[in-house]
Amino acid sequence: MVINFNNFFNTENKNAKIGDFQDLDHIDGVSISTTSANLYNNKRDDVVLFYFRDGASYASVYTQSKIISENIKWNLKIKSKKIRALLVNTRNANAFTGAKGFKSLVNLADSLSVQLSEKNKIDDENPIKIRPSDILFASTGTIGEKFPEDKIKYCLPELMQKIKYTQNKYIWMKAAMGIITTDMKPKIAMEECKIGNATVKIYGIAKGSGMIYPNMATTLGFIFTDATLSSTILRKILKKNIETTFNAISCDGDTSTNDMVTIFSTNKIKNTEIKNASDKKLFEFNKSLHNVLLNLAKRVASDGEGASKFVTISTINSKNETQAKTISFSVANSPLVKTAIAGEDPNWGRIIMAIGKAKIKIDIKKLSIKFGNHKIIEKGELINNYNEEEVANYMKSEKIDIVIDLGVGSKNFTVYTMDLTKKYIEINSDYRS
Amino acid sequence: MVINFNNFFNTENKNAKIGDFQDLDHIDGVSISTTSANLYNNKRDDVVLFYFRDGASYASVYTQSKIISENIKWNLKIKSKKIRALLVNTRNANAFTGAKGFKSLVNLADSLSVQLSEKNKIDDENPIKIRPSDILFASTGTIGEKFPEDKIKYCLPELMQKIKYTQNKYIWMKAAMGIITTDMKPKIAMEECKIGNATVKIYGIAKGSGMIYPNMATTLGFIFTDATLSSTILRKILKKNIETTFNAISCDGDTSTNDMVTIFSTNKIKNTEIKNASDKKLFEFNKSLHNVLLNLAKRVASDGEGASKFVTISTINSKNETQAKTISFSVANSPLVKTAIAGEDPNWGRIIMAIGKAKIKIDIKKLSIKFGNHKIIEKGELINNYNEEEVANYMKSEKIDIVIDLGVGSKNFTVYTMDLTKKYIEINSDYRS
Repeated sequence: MVINFNNFFNTENKNAKIGDFQDLDHIDGVSISTTSANLYNNKRDDVVLFYFRDGASYASVYTQSKIISENIKWNLKIKSKKIRALLVNTRNANAFTGAKGFKSLVNLADSLSVQLSEKNKIDDENPIKIRPSDILFASTGTIGEKFPEDKIKYCLPELMQKIKYTQNKYIWMKAAMGIITTDMKPKIAMEECKIGNATVKIYGIAKGSGMIYPNMATTLGFIFTDATLSSTILRKILKKNIETTFNAISCDGDTSTNDMVTIFSTNKIKNTEIKNASDKKLFEFNKSLHNVLLNLAKRVASDGEGASKFVTISTINSKNETQAKTISFSVANSPLVKTAIAGEDPNWGRIIMAIGKAKIKIDIKKLSIKFGNHKIIEKGELINNYNEEEVANYMKSEKIDIVIDLGVGSKNFTVYTMDLTKKYIEINSDYRS
Repeated sequence: MVINFNNFFNTENKNAKIGDFQDLDHIDGVSISTTSANLYNNKRDDVVLFYFRDGASYASVYTQSKIISENIKWNLKIKSKKIRALLVNTRNANAFTGAKGFKSLVNLADSLSVQLSEKNKIDDENPIKIRPSDILFASTGTIGEKFPEDKIKYCLPELMQKIKYTQNKYIWMKAAMGIITTDMKPKIAMEECKIGNATVKIYGIAKGSGMIYPNMATTLGFIFTDATLSSTILRKILKKNIETTFNAISCDGDTSTNDMVTIFSTNKIKNTEIKNASDKKLFEFNKSLHNVLLNLAKRVASDGEGASKFVTISTINSKNETQAKTISFSVANSPLVKTAIAGEDPNWGRIIMAIGKAKIKIDIKKLSIKFGNHKIIEKGELINNYNEEEVANYMKSEKIDIVIDLGVGSKNFTVYTMDLTKKYIEINSDYRS
């Protein structure tokens, strides 16, 4: 069962095309190449290169895990303010691979920088030399297996040949397909917006899956814009917008060994100069970036392994956002709540239990709970004319919204998650899935 | 699939009988009655009375949830140092039932105290009057449904008739069966030990289930001893021993609305007087109480919904116990680890990930990991002659032991849990299971 999320992921941006996937086209300054290093032994595309011929400003947020992959260690050492390339591989996380795993990246960066420099010499009027330290790496896959340096190195010449300087929707789709692992669907989103009078694009692709609980699998998200924005500005607005998007899905990116969300700006659109992240001229860009990140994050949540329903848990009218977030996550992460939703059972008692275990003091007399538009608890009591049949009918929907109204303040936090199905167990108990 | 736990729950006490269940017999001062109030509409026993004719000292640990059931509220109000009865019902948790749910307990305590006083008048030479405040309640079942006061009240006369002043193994088994909900098996344990020269008994029964993660379902544990110990002493030794037993299973009793472990001592064996909990004469009793609690806690963990394997996660040589506990729980609660175990896959990469997400600083160069007797990681590296086939074979066992050696100190903590199977989803996604 795959969720049809056409219905609920349409962005607010009127320019965005409606449909299962938005059609991304060309974005100036980004080049893409996708190939197979045969990492899965089945010839699927498993290596994707994003190449910024004229460089890109960039900013990343990484996993908060205390055991991080070698590629994250590599990225953290890169101090350049402009980057030339991002190489993504699947199948192998390059985590717990020690000094050897890191050395593989040194070797790969050497080869790739030489080959990109060669390519540059042929294709560009004013060729520049690309250094190993101009390259970022993203990896996702099995932990602790030897990193397939040779296989990836072997495919680099082909990757060079396949570089597309002009993209279209098929190339983006190939890239989005090339980075997924057990995902059922590629994840793509876009917005266009204004900075001053200039129209800029914000494109994004992501991978998720395996993340029925927070922190359990690798999330990768890559955002590309042609806006002119410095790495410092990008860092601030990415950090701000990640909290209510990728960090608000029940797989907050902060504790797999490999999680990484990076934004790149090619600076090709000469918008008015932005000197600080709170500049009002960034209002639209901020909103659009939030939309793209949220759109991708929702696709990641709804495509969680085995998901049959997309679920939002909103805690509203809380004293502060932290308490709202704690309660929303407590409900969103409860296997008893998630299995009840899979069973289409409006089992509100389990919601009550999950609220209680969040260890936030609750004024029960002010607590209200809604499933969709159906009030269940009103100020601490089951509503008089509670019609369970009606609510059970609502539970048959593909999208379930649960609203917990604490009635003690004005702060809200929404978490995006999915149900817990037998399919999840099937996927994850397969030997070395 | 039901785990055969004969093999690994035998207690250390040589007096304990080996077998699937230890045979509990009479314990002076405890009377038991079990009946059906037809709460499940299938005539199964669902109400159990423990009656202490001559009173019992007692101590309880309760759930730490911020939403607690009405029976826990009742129990917290009881200030008597001696108790006369404990009434347990299943099917209905009496949680989120508000003032009406509490009033039901007031009414039940009134009826029960009158009927017990009547019974006492007939059966005892020196009859005493039993007050409502001499009664404790334990409930487990669905949250938010009207408490079935009338049905329970209706069965009280029958419960009085069925009171057994002398128990045997069948009566204990009936009581243990009467308190379970979706448990596959009743949970019973016993030890005998000495306090000074006196031999005393420690008997226990428990219920669990639905608790594949911490804090998700109701755990009840009731311990009975004929030792002479005050409520103050009992409170201290219960609190001490609960940490490494019921609070060390991946369902630590602290956050369902109804969790409760209570110890009762009938003071029938005139052991040497114990004035403080650290008295050396309590050494054996402490150890035996720990064994009984751990035995019950393990049975609860291994009988978790859908469990096919019993799993222990030990973090050893940690700087302190808190860090060892955090890491053990992080691994024990990881659905990816639990599904890998269900799939009999020695997927040590997922163990690494779960260690990393615990957010405790790790010195990878000192980290070692064992599955049973099989070394996998030695000082941060996969061992040279790693034979995955051998370890995969080990994973077929019903009992899986994972040892995480941090190599930085001397403190340990073991958590008891089970695997995550499709059966769990089946049980919990059934409409209002």
